[in-house]
Amino acid sequence: MHYPTWTSAVHHDGSALYLQPSQPYHLGQQVTVRLRTPLAAPITQAFIRICPDGEQTFVAMQPAERTETIQWWQGQITLSMPRTGYRFWLMTEQGGWWLSAAGMQRSTPTDATDFKLLADYHAPTWVHSAVFYQIFPDRFCDGEPSNNVVDGEYTVYGKPTIARQWGEAPQKATGGIEFFGGDLQGISQKLDYLAQLGINALYLTPIFTAPSNHKYDTADYLQIDQHFGGEAALAELRQATQRYQMKLMLDIVLNHCGYTHHWFTAAQADTNAPTADYFSWKQHPNEYESWLGHRSLPKLNYTSHGLRQAIYGSEQAIVRHWLRQPYAIDGWRIDVANMLARQGSSQLGHKIGRALRRAVKAESPEAYLLGEHFYDGTNHLQGDELDASMNYRGFTFPTLQWLVGFDMASVWNLVWEDRALLPTEALGEQWLAFLAVIPWQVALQQFNLLDSHDTPRLLTIVGGDLSLHHVAVTLQMTFPGVPCIYYGDEVGMQGGGDPECRGCMPWDAQVWDHDLLAFYRSLIGLRRSSSALSVGGFQLLLAEGDTVAFMRRSADECLLIVAQRAATSIPPIPMFATGLTDGTSFIKVAGTTKITIQAGVLVLPQTGISASIWQMQ
Amino acid sequence: MHYPTWTSAVHHDGSALYLQPSQPYHLGQQVTVRLRTPLAAPITQAFIRICPDGEQTFVAMQPAERTETIQWWQGQITLSMPRTGYRFWLMTEQGGWWLSAAGMQRSTPTDATDFKLLADYHAPTWVHSAVFYQIFPDRFCDGEPSNNVVDGEYTVYGKPTIARQWGEAPQKATGGIEFFGGDLQGISQKLDYLAQLGINALYLTPIFTAPSNHKYDTADYLQIDQHFGGEAALAELRQATQRYQMKLMLDIVLNHCGYTHHWFTAAQADTNAPTADYFSWKQHPNEYESWLGHRSLPKLNYTSHGLRQAIYGSEQAIVRHWLRQPYAIDGWRIDVANMLARQGSSQLGHKIGRALRRAVKAESPEAYLLGEHFYDGTNHLQGDELDASMNYRGFTFPTLQWLVGFDMASVWNLVWEDRALLPTEALGEQWLAFLAVIPWQVALQQFNLLDSHDTPRLLTIVGGDLSLHHVAVTLQMTFPGVPCIYYGDEVGMQGGGDPECRGCMPWDAQVWDHDLLAFYRSLIGLRRSSSALSVGGFQLLLAEGDTVAFMRRSADECLLIVAQRAATSIPPIPMFATGLTDGTSFIKVAGTTKITIQAGVLVLPQTGISASIWQMQ
Repeated sequence: MHYPTWTSAVHHDGSALYLQPSQPYHLGQQVTVRLRTPLAAPITQAFIRICPDGEQTFVAMQPAERTETIQWWQGQITLSMPRTGYRFWLMTEQGGWWLSAAGMQRSTPTDATDFKLLADYHAPTWVHSAVFYQIFPDRFCDGEPSNNVVDGEYTVYGKPTIARQWGEAPQKATGGIEFFGGDLQGISQKLDYLAQLGINALYLTPIFTAPSNHKYDTADYLQIDQHFGGEAALAELRQATQRYQMKLMLDIVLNHCGYTHHWFTAAQADTNAPTADYFSWKQHPNEYESWLGHRSLPKLNYTSHGLRQAIYGSEQAIVRHWLRQPYAIDGWRIDVANMLARQGSSQLGHKIGRALRRAVKAESPEAYLLGEHFYDGTNHLQGDELDASMNYRGFTFPTLQWLVGFDMASVWNLVWEDRALLPTEALGEQWLAFLAVIPWQVALQQFNLLDSHDTPRLLTIVGGDLSLHHVAVTLQMTFPGVPCIYYGDEVGMQGGGDPECRGCMPWDAQVWDHDLLAFYRSLIGLRRSSSALSVGGFQLLLAEGDTVAFMRRSADECLLIVAQRAATSIPPIPMFATGLTDGTSFIKVAGTTKITIQAGVLVLPQTGISASIWQMQ
Repeated sequence: MHYPTWTSAVHHDGSALYLQPSQPYHLGQQVTVRLRTPLAAPITQAFIRICPDGEQTFVAMQPAERTETIQWWQGQITLSMPRTGYRFWLMTEQGGWWLSAAGMQRSTPTDATDFKLLADYHAPTWVHSAVFYQIFPDRFCDGEPSNNVVDGEYTVYGKPTIARQWGEAPQKATGGIEFFGGDLQGISQKLDYLAQLGINALYLTPIFTAPSNHKYDTADYLQIDQHFGGEAALAELRQATQRYQMKLMLDIVLNHCGYTHHWFTAAQADTNAPTADYFSWKQHPNEYESWLGHRSLPKLNYTSHGLRQAIYGSEQAIVRHWLRQPYAIDGWRIDVANMLARQGSSQLGHKIGRALRRAVKAESPEAYLLGEHFYDGTNHLQGDELDASMNYRGFTFPTLQWLVGFDMASVWNLVWEDRALLPTEALGEQWLAFLAVIPWQVALQQFNLLDSHDTPRLLTIVGGDLSLHHVAVTLQMTFPGVPCIYYGDEVGMQGGGDPECRGCMPWDAQVWDHDLLAFYRSLIGLRRSSSALSVGGFQLLLAEGDTVAFMRRSADECLLIVAQRAATSIPPIPMFATGLTDGTSFIKVAGTTKITIQAGVLVLPQTGISASIWQMQ
């Protein structure tokens, strides 16, 4: 279908340039909604379309200020519901156009891609400016050798524990039962390093008592593993992080527990045990539901009132306990959030998700509630469940598939591997599709990672090519959402899928890639000082060939990001869609190069594989 | 982005050609899922992607039978959840492609457009073969003059009732309080006429006791209005329709009641009345929530346990009562389903929708649960709430906007009117977008109307042009879903918005358009005898210029539908996407013209504004 040129320059997003006052909002609040259109657009009337209590209502917009290229429109809506969807209806003599978060279209869209505002939504206010650092505690730093697991200290699934020397390569054969000695004391000792890197939020994979090194097989949700230093070490780490103004997020497995958990051993021993209905028995005691069939990880049964009370419902519930002093953690990363409370005919995922949120926010409105979700988690991200998901599908995978043809299929032992580069148009399509269905406020909180303990390391993914690595990290630091760096990526650690990606952090600075570390520091510094990157709007300007370009813009800052995955030529960046005029200049961030819009486009220096950030003057 | 030609010919839908066994299904059932691909496609492997309990799983498909143009693939999935989303992953040497209900794409789609299968879903089995007829009882036939409302019999909102002569034009000034005498006895007397037309299901707008002529202001949900003949006349109509094997659906307003309802009068008189909490009082007794601010229609408050019991919860609840003998109605049309149980901070719509469904289906699994929804109702159509919505947004409005630039804005007193023709590409886009997000089983039940008591009549909408009228009705009878004819359209009744569209049915056959009536009879006959139209798949083949073409196909029948909105030339219809080979012939339904696929296309006779149906030989 023919899309007239002017339609490319109609823009709205959830940033402060388009909403007054800016988010957050309370129920009943009036909000002025603004729309930027090109002066040349043949728009005769503009409306905001909302659906209070399900009934369509059109709010007339008034023409507001006008420049030589832009006509602004504005109108006022009232947030009468916890979540208000809205989109725009633009009349022209040639027919009306809709603008939703999916873009402009002549046909009427479904409501799924409406822009969305949340009212009385308890957002953690610190997340926008956070730069996370993910630590796998056994492998980050051994701060207290006396608590290390020793050879044969206990058995895990029938096999004796194995103590390894720091820096040895993790072995696939002994994956879960080899221990390197990292602990919470070690993390406390390295906060200075992390603060210098620019990190202001930590995400630790599980630290509750559990037999394995990864501790996703929880044996006790109310104890910190003694080999990580116990509760005292967590309290100390909490105090230390507070001195560094660093947030602390823990990881909790609520989908299943470990088979050594006393809930399970008691239930297995006695069908009348108080925890018997915490699990789903096919045939007691040895046939039960478990995570993906792993018998060591019995699935928790959320139809059980007792379980719900223990997890989140009661005053002393687990998820509440650690939000309190002296631990007062700043957030939870919920493992396997995609499967939580879902079992065949009983699909309680959203119901439990909402209840869990209420419990967490009642304890600490500033807590960040992050869910692990490798697939489409957007229906958990509508303001009443998770604050964010690990944004594998909306950012990580499309970005890496575009950059180097990365495919998790091989890691996941699927029978194919798709190493074809994702077409750049498809990258833009996927980024926008996953952004379009969640509230903007949530989009800014999305957890944008490039790798984790569950994937190969970034430098390995890009085949050791530092140019490609720079492109990936630049996109991570500039895409809407908050970045998370996997420990050691910043000094050049490599490694394939688990367990290779779980190597020991090298503390001998001589082996570090100092240029890479400096690059990270510089980019993190930019990220933390930039309102455009933390809360600015997002507009995709170009996605073709090997080039993707987008703009991030706040009230006082405008950044252009251009990423190039191959040594082909960078096409002129079309700037008509931004409303910026010829003569507007941009200076390269951390550089001196200046470029100026001429004839509606920006021509960039040709640099081969690279990503660059340009600041409007 | 470049879409290789082969991608247009990959097809799957929920019809029996693609699923074995065909729907319906029970929980735990294994289903063989089939995919049609062109033999020329460079597909190396094909998978069905499902997400049981939220975890992505790929089921390998095997190559199945092959023709000179087609390679079929098949694989088996288990329906472990009430609703199973699935899509296809097709590997090629140039990268993988997804096929979801939204079509083919290189990027990963969100789950919203997954194909969807329902398990243990109580579908009314009769709906597929139904052709509905909507009756506004006061205006269809006066079977018993003795029960007619007489001048000044009572007052409605302070104004005395007015009796009109059959055939007089309804007046805007006296809209709700003028009465023409139609009743249930009259409907019983005209069943022979309706049966000859081919109708096998009736939809009556409300008949419960209420002061107005439209009776959307219910005074008593447990009584049939005496002026329509009371309960006895309904019981008689029920018996009569059963003799004609005709289904009977009633209309009920559950969002609000009339201010003369005893629930409301009691509540207004006494804050301690048992029904006081059925309503939302801003300030008792005169300030209360009402439908769109109409004080005569107080909104029902679904946070009230008593109300929920009265409406659906108790054994004697209203929605259950009429499903029982001697009335045993076959379905409910829920008025204003879009707003039901939604009030500002309390958005209980889906929760109440699910509970309402459970109550209705417990009483009568074969009952059809239809919701009025002028907007996007697709999130009520996921198998656990409504069986269907009045498909204004997925069929009616885009079709009429495409055909003649029809816009409800003027009817709804909005400040603009968009009379531009919807581009044909946008028509296809909107049809597919609303189909893509609902289960196929629900799509086949969608209530496809062209007009109603809430819109101008079709013949008026098309400006009296019978060619355009034929195009609209042909699309209605052939689009996925069930058609509903608004009383009198078949004989050429005209009329603008309410009250003009509510004229009296003329029973003097001399004033009828007999050609039009014959056209309806013929098309209804085709519709009722055609498996392709009632349960066949749907594939859009062409949407450009002024032409839209699609295929409906069942195991034993294949129909091509081509609609042309202007006297421009019909382009060749590309048949590559269907997998049919050169030499395949089609005969015009109700005609003798034969056309044959040559060089991959079908060339149709040029006929100006028209719609034609072609049956594959």
